[in-house]
Amino acid sequence: MENYKLASVKPSVAEFKVGVDNVIFSVDTQHNRLLILLVKRYKEPYANYFSLPGTLVRVGESLEAAADRTLSEKIEVENLYLEQLYTFGEPGRDPRDQKNNQDQRYLSVSYFALVRYEDTNLITTGNRKAVWHLLKETPQLAFDHNRILDYGYQRLRNKLEYSPIAFKVLPEAFTLNDLYQFYTTVLGEHFSDYSNFRARLLKLGFLTDTGLKVSRGAGRPATLYRFDEDAFALLKDKPLVFI
Amino acid sequence: MENYKLASVKPSVAEFKVGVDNVIFSVDTQHNRLLILLVKRYKEPYANYFSLPGTLVRVGESLEAAADRTLSEKIEVENLYLEQLYTFGEPGRDPRDQKNNQDQRYLSVSYFALVRYEDTNLITTGNRKAVWHLLKETPQLAFDHNRILDYGYQRLRNKLEYSPIAFKVLPEAFTLNDLYQFYTTVLGEHFSDYSNFRARLLKLGFLTDTGLKVSRGAGRPATLYRFDEDAFALLKDKPLVFI
Repeated sequence: MENYKLASVKPSVAEFKVGVDNVIFSVDTQHNRLLILLVKRYKEPYANYFSLPGTLVRVGESLEAAADRTLSEKIEVENLYLEQLYTFGEPGRDPRDQKNNQDQRYLSVSYFALVRYEDTNLITTGNRKAVWHLLKETPQLAFDHNRILDYGYQRLRNKLEYSPIAFKVLPEAFTLNDLYQFYTTVLGEHFSDYSNFRARLLKLGFLTDTGLKVSRGAGRPATLYRFDEDAFALLKDKPLVFI
Repeated sequence: MENYKLASVKPSVAEFKVGVDNVIFSVDTQHNRLLILLVKRYKEPYANYFSLPGTLVRVGESLEAAADRTLSEKIEVENLYLEQLYTFGEPGRDPRDQKNNQDQRYLSVSYFALVRYEDTNLITTGNRKAVWHLLKETPQLAFDHNRILDYGYQRLRNKLEYSPIAFKVLPEAFTLNDLYQFYTTVLGEHFSDYSNFRARLLKLGFLTDTGLKVSRGAGRPATLYRFDEDAFALLKDKPLVFI
């Protein structure tokens, strides 16, 4: 009888609202600071906590459109390319999804981007202003956003190892030391010593000497390089490791 | 007036059901066939089409538990490790999500695995039996599952380049030719010539000579190797490229 009753109950399909949450990094190359875009929540749950900038997907809206919409209200940035990061959907990840209301779940599809600091403008009107926050001083965030952020930071580190993501956000002409500082800011001081890094990057063949030099401080003038898209394209089908 | 009316309408948050769809590959090393796990649908939409094995997430169930549940009804496999692949959520991707019913959307979170062919058992009871299908003869699948499958196949190819995924599904002792055949079955004939492949893999230092040899056909006996987890662990923090 007990078994019969259990078997006759058709398990219910869960009802979801779907959020998008954006993990947007930037490197302030002037001050070697790795930054993460955060917003302060003004309502419950987690009122007055920082969170990743996100929103709930609306009727007729794609996931990417929702991610773009919420960012475009907070930040102006050229050529933003959002990459899907990971989807978080455990029961209970949102306090609005309680045991007594299990038929309403909240799922988060997260997106990732690295943007050029100098090309971004934070929008200071509106009631959900975004701020750049030092990654290494990230506070306790709303929901499971610290976990999402950790996941995004790991993606950023991995991408620096095999993709030309850094060259999209560095100035067009840069010294090898600029590039090394950029990598150090993201990966930490001890990811590689400078001479190995320099030798490895030059050997890959996609950095072109611009013929220009720049003097900074007391050292001798340093060569300015640029990233050569064409040389890189030739390598594209081969797996590469930069560091 | 028009503007006022528009502004006063609060955009509606979409309601979703969340599906999980599994992209499960296997390599039949006896016959050098790359296989994908499919099920035949028995009801609309797409009745009688093949699809990836999937299900809708139930009340109180995590995404991974839903993926495990639907697979465990169809296939017995040891140590299945499902990796999240990508989330597909465009409006209209499911025919049940129609323009006249835009408040009900279907989202798919896809999962990926490569399983050892010899260790799997297809379950032949139940009404949604799974079959192994030759990847290169994949028919038109239900929904956007060809696209999800393409995405999974790209992930499989990429993982062969930098992760030891092949060694989890090859026999414990294998010849370099076995390994090459495995890579060729997944990546196609021209991914690398044998002698480059052989030299590269041996140089990485995580293949250990077992001291055993095997004779097959007319050639001279071939050395049997095994994958050395410990040697690989030492390399783990360094980015690797196998091919």
